[in-house]
Amino acid sequence: MSATRYAYLGPEGTFTEVALRTLPEAATRELVPMLSVPAALDAVRSGEAAAALVPIENSVEGGISATLDELTGGEPLMIYREVLLSITFALLVRPGTKLQDIKTVTAHPAAQPQVRNWMAAHLPQAAWESAASNADGARLVQEGRYDAAFAGEFAAAIYGLEPLVTEIHDAENAQTRFVLVGRPARPSAPTGADKTSVAIWLGDDHPGALLELLQEFAVRGVNLMLIQSRPTGEGIGNYCFAVDAEGHIADRRVGEALMGLKRICPKVRFLGSYPRAGVSADEVTPPRAGTSDTAFTEASDWLARSQDGRI
Amino acid sequence: MSATRYAYLGPEGTFTEVALRTLPEAATRELVPMLSVPAALDAVRSGEAAAALVPIENSVEGGISATLDELTGGEPLMIYREVLLSITFALLVRPGTKLQDIKTVTAHPAAQPQVRNWMAAHLPQAAWESAASNADGARLVQEGRYDAAFAGEFAAAIYGLEPLVTEIHDAENAQTRFVLVGRPARPSAPTGADKTSVAIWLGDDHPGALLELLQEFAVRGVNLMLIQSRPTGEGIGNYCFAVDAEGHIADRRVGEALMGLKRICPKVRFLGSYPRAGVSADEVTPPRAGTSDTAFTEASDWLARSQDGRI
Amino acid sequence: MSATRYAYLGPEGTFTEVALRTLPEAATRELVPMLSVPAALDAVRSGEAAAALVPIENSVEGGISATLDELTGGEPLMIYREVLLSITFALLVRPGTKLQDIKTVTAHPAAQPQVRNWMAAHLPQAAWESAASNADGARLVQEGRYDAAFAGEFAAAIYGLEPLVTEIHDAENAQTRFVLVGRPARPSAPTGADKTSVAIWLGDDHPGALLELLQEFAVRGVNLMLIQSRPTGEGIGNYCFAVDAEGHIADRRVGEALMGLKRICPKVRFLGSYPRAGVSADEVTPPRAGTSDTAFTEASDWLARSQDGRI
Amino acid sequence: MSATRYAYLGPEGTFTEVALRTLPEAATRELVPMLSVPAALDAVRSGEAAAALVPIENSVEGGISATLDELTGGEPLMIYREVLLSITFALLVRPGTKLQDIKTVTAHPAAQPQVRNWMAAHLPQAAWESAASNADGARLVQEGRYDAAFAGEFAAAIYGLEPLVTEIHDAENAQTRFVLVGRPARPSAPTGADKTSVAIWLGDDHPGALLELLQEFAVRGVNLMLIQSRPTGEGIGNYCFAVDAEGHIADRRVGEALMGLKRICPKVRFLGSYPRAGVSADEVTPPRAGTSDTAFTEASDWLARSQDGRI
Repeated sequence: MSATRYAYLGPEGTFTEVALRTLPEAATRELVPMLSVPAALDAVRSGEAAAALVPIENSVEGGISATLDELTGGEPLMIYREVLLSITFALLVRPGTKLQDIKTVTAHPAAQPQVRNWMAAHLPQAAWESAASNADGARLVQEGRYDAAFAGEFAAAIYGLEPLVTEIHDAENAQTRFVLVGRPARPSAPTGADKTSVAIWLGDDHPGALLELLQEFAVRGVNLMLIQSRPTGEGIGNYCFAVDAEGHIADRRVGEALMGLKRICPKVRFLGSYPRAGVSADEVTPPRAGTSDTAFTEASDWLARSQDGRI
Repeated sequence: MSATRYAYLGPEGTFTEVALRTLPEAATRELVPMLSVPAALDAVRSGEAAAALVPIENSVEGGISATLDELTGGEPLMIYREVLLSITFALLVRPGTKLQDIKTVTAHPAAQPQVRNWMAAHLPQAAWESAASNADGARLVQEGRYDAAFAGEFAAAIYGLEPLVTEIHDAENAQTRFVLVGRPARPSAPTGADKTSVAIWLGDDHPGALLELLQEFAVRGVNLMLIQSRPTGEGIGNYCFAVDAEGHIADRRVGEALMGLKRICPKVRFLGSYPRAGVSADEVTPPRAGTSDTAFTEASDWLARSQDGRI
Repeated sequence: MSATRYAYLGPEGTFTEVALRTLPEAATRELVPMLSVPAALDAVRSGEAAAALVPIENSVEGGISATLDELTGGEPLMIYREVLLSITFALLVRPGTKLQDIKTVTAHPAAQPQVRNWMAAHLPQAAWESAASNADGARLVQEGRYDAAFAGEFAAAIYGLEPLVTEIHDAENAQTRFVLVGRPARPSAPTGADKTSVAIWLGDDHPGALLELLQEFAVRGVNLMLIQSRPTGEGIGNYCFAVDAEGHIADRRVGEALMGLKRICPKVRFLGSYPRAGVSADEVTPPRAGTSDTAFTEASDWLARSQDGRI
Repeated sequence: MSATRYAYLGPEGTFTEVALRTLPEAATRELVPMLSVPAALDAVRSGEAAAALVPIENSVEGGISATLDELTGGEPLMIYREVLLSITFALLVRPGTKLQDIKTVTAHPAAQPQVRNWMAAHLPQAAWESAASNADGARLVQEGRYDAAFAGEFAAAIYGLEPLVTEIHDAENAQTRFVLVGRPARPSAPTGADKTSVAIWLGDDHPGALLELLQEFAVRGVNLMLIQSRPTGEGIGNYCFAVDAEGHIADRRVGEALMGLKRICPKVRFLGSYPRAGVSADEVTPPRAGTSDTAFTEASDWLARSQDGRI
């Protein structure tokens, strides 16, 4: 086991590695590329790594489904940090290659939607070949198998390529969100700008179950930032939901909402409370009237008095 | 102050008195008729009476609005018991009066809807005159002011009248509900078949406030048995709601729902938790899955573990 | 039958009469006082009167319950207009009476809450006696039965009394709302500032029925202005609700919400769509995004195209 | 353009091909394997194929995300049929290979979760290599690149392999759902056991938007069978939802719910109404009281009468 080793979705030169290096502590860790999300997270489970950084939302390197499936299934893990990274691609080629020479181009399939329009405009004649990762695509260009790869500009140096075009991205503000995952432990203290992730299974015979799930949050004024469905692997129509909610599990409104879910759903798994990337406590919308910790405490006091007849 | 004196909405011979006498303890109390609901409840507030029985729902002697207004306004009181009484009227006359002699008939205005059809069929020629109470109507017949009074059959003896017709009631199963009201104190322990009464004020500028109020109950699986609106006296459109919910304030689902109300509403007043009349614990529908005290305790334990990272 | 006769809750000199005289057309009608709300509305049903003005909310002369019961039960009637009247009382006495002479004071019981504080401060020694109406109380003072009456200042002249104190009202902005009721007919066209009244019965065995009722309005963005519960007379726990909603039955969001109620409730009775008193179309909050008639029409068109496969 | 050509997610020997051959009409069509879901659907868009069968839920050959992204983006298409197929794998090897000889095994990555446990138990020493499809994995075994492939047993004959082990599947009742997609046209008539698919975009600045979306269905008694989130490609937190609802767009409750969505959501795309696979009209739960077409018609009639004053 090593407290100084961090795994990530590799190989070297992926956006995930760049995202990991934005964390200050990364400078003092040994960063270990793993070939898949399950491999990276299993390294954490086995103790080979203290934590792993993997993509979880809107990825250009795949991994979202794998990450969600690993977090919702298998031995429990928890999220301790998130990192947002703006994604732009470079077209990497062997030195000397010109745009008109490019017959084949490669990248991870998840990158394709973000470069499709650019390709149609600038490389209409080129064939797309999928690679296991964007970095691996760069390696295949280095080996001469394909003519060009879409990858992060930073990958050029690693694979001896040069960026022929940079800043390629079809959607404005394309971002990927990554999470730093570790073994379960007490979450860090609330910062005032926090996010809580939870996986929720619905009973399979109840058409209104998702509505009830959302009402557990809504009635306590807890805003949802993201809800993603994942099949449970137990047959058609069996889904679990990975939900990101505003606030920290130590906030009373969040705690009561989670208890409500725990009571009505067959299974709930807490996935972590952690600081929101790129948002400070000043920028957070304050909780709706009646849902602050103070309001909860006053209501508890009032209930205790009422139960005692001191009204 | 007298712990042995119970006030009730009088005068003697009202249905309220009959309802009061169904309580075992009434046999050992001094029963004091009061001329109005406010007077009966003020006797409790001042300590002249230990408790007062007053009608609160579907009354044939009025008093519902007065009772609700007294419970929601003024110095706090609490409900400790409820009594259900089936209501049927007798037509009381001076001995010797025949049906065809009756030109005027009297009773409290609240009785009128329950005898209207019978009167149309059997006393089409008679004029209706309102009385301050059904018992008072009987007294006015005794004095010769009117020819007949609708009242409880039991009132005949008190006022020297005879019941010319009995078992008069337009609606089948007409019942009135009465509550025994005392000064605030700790409610009696849950029996498994309990009811909780609460008064809730809504903020005046929020069209969805009533919906939110009901959702605080619904999301915790607390069934409502009754919701009655009362103007607050602060102008058109300002209402408070008197709500009866299944369960006891010591039940966790009820407690959490009440705290939810307390947090979102400008004012909430607890009016008591008390045994349901005529219903035993066996007959009560069990709480919806996930809303028992056990489910609440398990969810609290799960939350504590999650906050600690023991997932 | 008379198209020129308007009934109202009398006797002469009530606030209801004053409210009725604020309607321009009242100048050309014969105004007929009736001794009760049922009498006034029966005059409409029988054709003796074209319409009747009766109090419906926050009344100081009673009549709310009676009005609601008459509108929700019996032969159908409809509301065509509403009138708001600010209520302040005068203390009416026989000429020469001084404040310190007053031993008994009278008014309709519904007036009592609005003058209670004033009485406690200025007439602490006086006894309260209930009258059949505020105007009738004035008549009883004229006859010498009581020393003073709370009534509208305008009643002084009618009964030969003088206003000893004016502008008495415990609550600021005390208002009563009156409605002009007629036989069913097509409502007047929408003005842009309209209100729709409807009576809704809930099935008796369904704890969430009221919540569902409110959701039929909420999901179409129809704001509720008032919800009042009334017992149906069919036993404890059986209630109907009289609801006032923003908008006109010709507005599509209102129409769809009413159809929704009609589908899920055992009984719904339309009570009228009419202009809001004291509010012009400019002052009305526009409907929530997606609930205007235009939005409904666009959605219908889209549905028709989709059903046709023209997507 | 060819009305007789059906595309499918190939290559030959995929579960998708087997699913396609369960459709009676497949016998008279030319079945054309395509190498990706986008390729199969583009063949429909361009008119090269009349329809395409692609996996949409719980696939073991991938394609779910691609299918959802193609249906929600790009030129509109519609679903006309669904096919459910039970999935079990065979381990395919070159004739003569024994279990202990297997060092490398391949299949599409989406198959991995369904064979993981079996592999751990029976092939603990074998390395996993991803293939572009399960059928392509079989081809690579035929070519000698890998030792074994997980694929449908039917693929053995196509690629000259033999099934060493059959009936491999980690989850009981593993099924994949496929849809037959064509260019937009009027849906087939309701059968009484229908499903409606729709894609719904939420406004990005509204935390309660998903709850409101679900309420549009719930208030009309339309049950949801599936809700899947997909990123819109417009940045973190921007999602659209692919929803399957019970019923047909020609059913009034479904039509009104869809119109409600159209009014409140920035974008809604109808994806088709089609018969439910494996369910006959007798087996369908009848619509909730008040949501049948008859109830809708009665409510419309009532509204028309009320708007006319015929109450």
